[in-house]
Amino acid sequence: MMEPFNVRTAMRKEEHTGTTSGLCEGYIQTNMVTLPKEYAFDFLLFCMRNPKPCPLVEVMEAGQTVPQAADADIRTDLPRYRIYRDGKFAEEVLNISDVWQDDFVTFLIGCSFTFEKALLDGGIPLFHQEQKKVVPMFDTTIPLESAGIFKGNMVVSMRAVPNHLVDQALAISDRFEQSHGSPVHIGSPEEIGIKDLQSPDYGQAVDFDPAEATPVFWACGVTPQNAALQAKPSMMITHAPGHMLITDQLDPNYKNG
Amino acid sequence: MMEPFNVRTAMRKEEHTGTTSGLCEGYIQTNMVTLPKEYAFDFLLFCMRNPKPCPLVEVMEAGQTVPQAADADIRTDLPRYRIYRDGKFAEEVLNISDVWQDDFVTFLIGCSFTFEKALLDGGIPLFHQEQKKVVPMFDTTIPLESAGIFKGNMVVSMRAVPNHLVDQALAISDRFEQSHGSPVHIGSPEEIGIKDLQSPDYGQAVDFDPAEATPVFWACGVTPQNAALQAKPSMMITHAPGHMLITDQLDPNYKNG
Repeated sequence: MMEPFNVRTAMRKEEHTGTTSGLCEGYIQTNMVTLPKEYAFDFLLFCMRNPKPCPLVEVMEAGQTVPQAADADIRTDLPRYRIYRDGKFAEEVLNISDVWQDDFVTFLIGCSFTFEKALLDGGIPLFHQEQKKVVPMFDTTIPLESAGIFKGNMVVSMRAVPNHLVDQALAISDRFEQSHGSPVHIGSPEEIGIKDLQSPDYGQAVDFDPAEATPVFWACGVTPQNAALQAKPSMMITHAPGHMLITDQLDPNYKNG
Repeated sequence: MMEPFNVRTAMRKEEHTGTTSGLCEGYIQTNMVTLPKEYAFDFLLFCMRNPKPCPLVEVMEAGQTVPQAADADIRTDLPRYRIYRDGKFAEEVLNISDVWQDDFVTFLIGCSFTFEKALLDGGIPLFHQEQKKVVPMFDTTIPLESAGIFKGNMVVSMRAVPNHLVDQALAISDRFEQSHGSPVHIGSPEEIGIKDLQSPDYGQAVDFDPAEATPVFWACGVTPQNAALQAKPSMMITHAPGHMLITDQLDPNYKNG
């Protein structure tokens, strides 16, 4: 297995530009949200009020580019970024060096990729990894607590789990509180406003047999991107869905090291 | 025992202007810090990084005057307030209605008064209550994590505890994580930079026999006032030390209801 530093260096050189799912297993991966400082209080409060989709791993100071969690430059060491202007998706880029501002505040938010190795270790297959897809993510009707300009509904990631392993998946993910923890919904996508599992709002559709496997939904760190569409900050930068910051921190919750 | 609403009404009418120690026992009391929104992100981060002196009970939106924790107006329903301008203490007032601004963000921070009833219920005498004094508080040399403009050392409250009851006081206060929890120091004031227990920086000196009782120090919600002296925000309003917001929330940690 490659070390996080080496993987991030490949990203910095723009040699690796794909999803981070399955990379550096056992290391904590995080979502990234970067905002001008004028929005930072509202967003920090939004995260505190919605810890399930937005579990804070680290809040960086204005202008800070190297987090405590990783020997990384957050402007270059993720594989892909998305830039939103006035609440609209503007472009997807491989680094954000050109658009960086000294008043940018960056939030690192826990990611369900962190517990995927634990799921695998628990004997739970990950169909999106087997099918080499970005995990499918969906907008839902699950409302969030608003904070200042930020409000909206939760985004979830979906993993289909063989029926007899659903309880096991619950128990394992429940240990990872800083990475969204236990699922927010199991079973019926329509109950949380999802019409078609084959048409995800982010990521890619994954094949599974609905007679054999149950869709399980976890709160997702793409939620802030959804909230930004409504809050319309002048500028907001995030990781591209599925393309995370890989930190240098081993998750202490893994039973198999 | 009077209900919090009635006690706060007496404060609103400026009939009760003294310390809240021992009032409405069992109800959560909080420190208050109010700042213009431009400082709110730095301060929220400061609290998150220093949960022992600054355990957040509630963060209010900009301009919000009625908290969730109490059917109260935070501009009038504390007995006494302190106004700091440019990091200097300006005045102590009985309400802040005249100076209120729509961009003010208010933070409610846990207070050790909350667990005082539990200490009493555990057979631990509270000398400051017996002597009708405001609990003595001290600046220390215990450093804090900085956040933006906020930095400084911890302020502690001191209660002298009969020697054979110190362990009991530890165990009881440890249950109250949102109200500073267990002590930060026991025994030797000089080890945390306190020269004279009879000269507190805030509150009033309390008499006790050092052969019979041990000074026990808890992290104190006056800490932000100390940090403000260094950060020099243009405006900062706090409760006066010892003069708290009494909320409508019963602390679930009391064993005796």
